[in-house]
Amino acid sequence: MKSTRVKIRIVLVETTHPGNIGAAARAMKNMGLTRLFLVNPQRYPSAEATARAAGADDVLAQAVICDTLDEALTGCGLVFGASARMRSIPWPQLDPRQAAARALVAATTDEVAFVFGREHAGLSNQELDRCNFLLTIPTNTEFASLNVAAAVQIVSYELRMAGLETAPPAAAPESLASAEDRERFYRHLEQVLLELEFLDPSNPKHLMRRLRRLFNRVELDSNEVNILRGILTAVERRALNATRKRGEP
Amino acid sequence: MKSTRVKIRIVLVETTHPGNIGAAARAMKNMGLTRLFLVNPQRYPSAEATARAAGADDVLAQAVICDTLDEALTGCGLVFGASARMRSIPWPQLDPRQAAARALVAATTDEVAFVFGREHAGLSNQELDRCNFLLTIPTNTEFASLNVAAAVQIVSYELRMAGLETAPPAAAPESLASAEDRERFYRHLEQVLLELEFLDPSNPKHLMRRLRRLFNRVELDSNEVNILRGILTAVERRALNATRKRGEP
Repeated sequence: MKSTRVKIRIVLVETTHPGNIGAAARAMKNMGLTRLFLVNPQRYPSAEATARAAGADDVLAQAVICDTLDEALTGCGLVFGASARMRSIPWPQLDPRQAAARALVAATTDEVAFVFGREHAGLSNQELDRCNFLLTIPTNTEFASLNVAAAVQIVSYELRMAGLETAPPAAAPESLASAEDRERFYRHLEQVLLELEFLDPSNPKHLMRRLRRLFNRVELDSNEVNILRGILTAVERRALNATRKRGEP
Repeated sequence: MKSTRVKIRIVLVETTHPGNIGAAARAMKNMGLTRLFLVNPQRYPSAEATARAAGADDVLAQAVICDTLDEALTGCGLVFGASARMRSIPWPQLDPRQAAARALVAATTDEVAFVFGREHAGLSNQELDRCNFLLTIPTNTEFASLNVAAAVQIVSYELRMAGLETAPPAAAPESLASAEDRERFYRHLEQVLLELEFLDPSNPKHLMRRLRRLFNRVELDSNEVNILRGILTAVERRALNATRKRGEP
């Protein structure tokens, strides 16, 4: 369990209140997590963060400050994005218990991230595009907005419960593709769909988001990403070939 | 569930920081609980409590202020006392999940209380004597002291999870693709990979099996199969186009 927990990171995106950063660090340490990533925090470091950490200063001291979410997700095979809101395109949703169970399996071999958004605006659709799964904490529909540190507390608690309940699960055979590999694959895919004129840049109709939803859900391993990119390269070679031929007199 | 939840009360004993009272009220309301009892709070009411309640003012407004724990427990059939510490006399201990399950059963007929102690000193042995069970949240033994509102959050969350009969289903508004649709997609994919000369029929190397493993795992919906087949058709059009051009003099 210890070895899997060190592969789990908590990522807070553009947190406004430093007190929430401190409370999140405390919640993590209470549950045995240590790796905190802060994407562009509004006020940090801060005495308020340290006060609310209440002894989890070490978690704060080791926190990695990043400029972008992509930077914070570098090397991650599995990414969960916390979101209370329903999206226009339904994204695969897991509750914290389901997410924790999956996370612990993946963390036997891979880096895993849980991403939490801004206090008032959560995560953007572009940020959720980076996530394999939406993590939805079941709340009172009439009062759904959880404090960000409270959300971190619930997820950290479920990770601890999942680690106590189960013996370390059998490792996944192949290692998962990293977040960067996935992003490179999506860029390649988009490029090919544009070349094929299947994707109309003036009328994209959520096509890329639908494809992300599909491939994020599957938790691609490295070998699978290589196969898919090999196919894209084969298509490009042929499409470029066709274009060249058509250009000839 | 609604009728059982109204029989559950959260009791905070001699809370020092009003912010924790507000955060506890918010945590409760997020999870659908409303009944807060405050035993001899150090500073209350307080603007800080209201600020941290962040909209759960109604829970604060209805809170019952008591002079003693006994007063707060009047009429309760089942009482849980939150405690991180081991006691000299072993008391029946439950984790939050076990406690929530018992609480919901009891609350069909009886009043149930969850009691949370002081920030620095928890509950006294005399106060725990009032409790049917010790509720112990599993924490990192090296950093065991949870914030009181965080403890209320975990218990309220477990009560909500226990009350939901089933975990929220993964959003699947689209119907899944049928087995025949999937087979048609695989045949189409294989055909295109042959045309692209990505799949070598004399040395197939399990390629199709790997791709099936990938796409079977994702539980494709009908719309997704349509998108994927649309892409294959676009590739074919371009590949055939190239072939035709190549066939021309």
